[in-house]
Amino acid sequence: MLNQDDTILKFDIPEIIYGRGSLSKIGQCASRLGGEKVLVVTDPGIIKAGWIDLCLKYLLKERLRYVVYDNVVTNPRDFQVDQGVSLYLKKNCDVIIAVGGGSSIDTAKGIAILATNHGSVHEYAGCNLVHHPIPPLICVPTTSGTGADVSQFAIFLDIREKMKLCVLSRAIMPDISLIDPELLTTLSSELIAATGMDAFTHAIEAYVSSLSWPMTDPHAIHAIKLVAQHLVNATRTKDMTALEGMAIASLEAGMAFSNAILGAVHALSHPLGGLYDLHHGLVNSVILPAVLNQNLNHAMPKYARIAQAMGLELRGMRFEEAALHAPEKVKKLIKDLELPTRLSKLGADAEDIPVLAKMAQKDICMQTNPCSYSINEIETMYKEVW
Amino acid sequence: MLNQDDTILKFDIPEIIYGRGSLSKIGQCASRLGGEKVLVVTDPGIIKAGWIDLCLKYLLKERLRYVVYDNVVTNPRDFQVDQGVSLYLKKNCDVIIAVGGGSSIDTAKGIAILATNHGSVHEYAGCNLVHHPIPPLICVPTTSGTGADVSQFAIFLDIREKMKLCVLSRAIMPDISLIDPELLTTLSSELIAATGMDAFTHAIEAYVSSLSWPMTDPHAIHAIKLVAQHLVNATRTKDMTALEGMAIASLEAGMAFSNAILGAVHALSHPLGGLYDLHHGLVNSVILPAVLNQNLNHAMPKYARIAQAMGLELRGMRFEEAALHAPEKVKKLIKDLELPTRLSKLGADAEDIPVLAKMAQKDICMQTNPCSYSINEIETMYKEVW
Repeated sequence: MLNQDDTILKFDIPEIIYGRGSLSKIGQCASRLGGEKVLVVTDPGIIKAGWIDLCLKYLLKERLRYVVYDNVVTNPRDFQVDQGVSLYLKKNCDVIIAVGGGSSIDTAKGIAILATNHGSVHEYAGCNLVHHPIPPLICVPTTSGTGADVSQFAIFLDIREKMKLCVLSRAIMPDISLIDPELLTTLSSELIAATGMDAFTHAIEAYVSSLSWPMTDPHAIHAIKLVAQHLVNATRTKDMTALEGMAIASLEAGMAFSNAILGAVHALSHPLGGLYDLHHGLVNSVILPAVLNQNLNHAMPKYARIAQAMGLELRGMRFEEAALHAPEKVKKLIKDLELPTRLSKLGADAEDIPVLAKMAQKDICMQTNPCSYSINEIETMYKEVW
Repeated sequence: MLNQDDTILKFDIPEIIYGRGSLSKIGQCASRLGGEKVLVVTDPGIIKAGWIDLCLKYLLKERLRYVVYDNVVTNPRDFQVDQGVSLYLKKNCDVIIAVGGGSSIDTAKGIAILATNHGSVHEYAGCNLVHHPIPPLICVPTTSGTGADVSQFAIFLDIREKMKLCVLSRAIMPDISLIDPELLTTLSSELIAATGMDAFTHAIEAYVSSLSWPMTDPHAIHAIKLVAQHLVNATRTKDMTALEGMAIASLEAGMAFSNAILGAVHALSHPLGGLYDLHHGLVNSVILPAVLNQNLNHAMPKYARIAQAMGLELRGMRFEEAALHAPEKVKKLIKDLELPTRLSKLGADAEDIPVLAKMAQKDICMQTNPCSYSINEIETMYKEVW
């Protein structure tokens, strides 16, 4: 397990531009980074919602040329990155803008890696294996969950091996994250809930991570508070205040986890997502309660603080007692969001548990969980929510 | 007055590397930014303390060549920047490392500006007037106060006009802030106290600033808490836990104020520092109580939160009542630090008040104070602590 004692810690985030209507600044951002021809990476849903038309209008206003790569799907495939980089090179682009959720952003990161480092994304799965600087990269998130716009992570699906490739590299940090909460208004309630639970999981795992520190903690705990305040309302009413709260929550959770890394929820979630091609936020949400129960004894004071951030009045309560409220409050949140709570409901097959558990134990995110787990304990956690 | 409603907000900080012994990474940082020949900017005190010898050893280890500019003094003069940039250009340097307090860092920023933008620092005083990217810049703070290592500000003394030149520009953000709390061990108790009060003032002004937002607030409030916990102990015992607390406080206060900007304390402090060449942290500390009293009615809930961060148990107290504790707690802190509380003690002459008040009203920092002040009201604040 990684530990922060005697470790040199780091905190690195992109330049952040935030506000309703801030999409109008996208052309200036690209110009400022020296761009003349933009590759816009997105998916058909975002095009349909009208955001790409608006984005292209702002690029034209700044006299920028562009090409659009819109073949992104959930859990971006390795071969889609290859398609994207071919387009980038063929059309002589010099800046990349991702407009979308985690999948568009990760695809854009993959394209950026290959544009200057060549080869295939498989070669860069692991820690700091990207050595050459990537082209200027601007991210415009359209969901409030992934945090990919402010992170050093990119996840791809190896379609042949049915497993997730996790690239964690200082070199893939975007230059600018431009967050316009107006873009959340066209998101479905289901996606607001699932991506919101992704942000929530990032915040909780970063907060209890063995690499958390005073740079990451205030953002993690504030993100937890914002999710508790706004997520249910955001899914039910799409009220702008709630959506803005979630936009900030996703941003702060992303800042925290990119620097403190994650934990057992993500370690258990990655192999499942790879094997069954499931929505990442949804899988996290199902697994979270099982991991909370197991981690509880290893991070009592922090779980007490999580319960407090979710609305528990401490009133002199002992922290061991307060900590017990954290899993309860999380379960209540998931129930209020009407999200599934069993992996079998998502189509997972219990026979795969032994294989999944082995992969989960080796996952890079397990290294920063507040405690380590045996294969047996990991299987028990899977079974608890199967 | 600037206001955040309908404003597009931003949050931009350098990459942060933190930890005891992290100075050993300085060579790798410079290499990673493409540097081969370093200009090290520092002052004679830092050389005497032995930190530059150590720094140069780490640069040699990475096979980097270097030149040292060590003619920095408190309140860096415009002509020192000219000397430094001549050296940088003559010796064909390609990266700048500042090792020191705010003066070394601001001198390094000035050198960096002129290296690629030419002319004199006078031309860049104001908002976003630096148009060409500066050379790679790494800051290694040796005080826990200034925040210059993570800010877009640089302040110079125009020696002829006896006034401060304030450069506020996106382009002067350092690339890396490398914070090694070991470097604080050679600081005098007086400097720990005075620079610590600078950090404290940054945190308070950023927190109540009209441009504060959820990205800056958690850092501002955490910095206030850390100063309340650690500053007195740091000055009295130089205990490592207290020094580490102050290193983080200075960092978080810097992150907050660089993005939320400041307020009336700095607006009143700048002209005084310019006219009498006084220590910036010390002047802030003297002025702070007067501004707190005047600002109180314009930011009651925030002052309540400041009092709480400084240790006040709210226990259902109304926020109007809690807010009143903030100025009291600050005065107690200044008393415990045994810092001067009157400007006349620093050698200021009361006849200058009308001139100072006019300059303070026009200071860029006044724009983000929670309320605006007439010349008369500014004079009253000066007189309160004269």
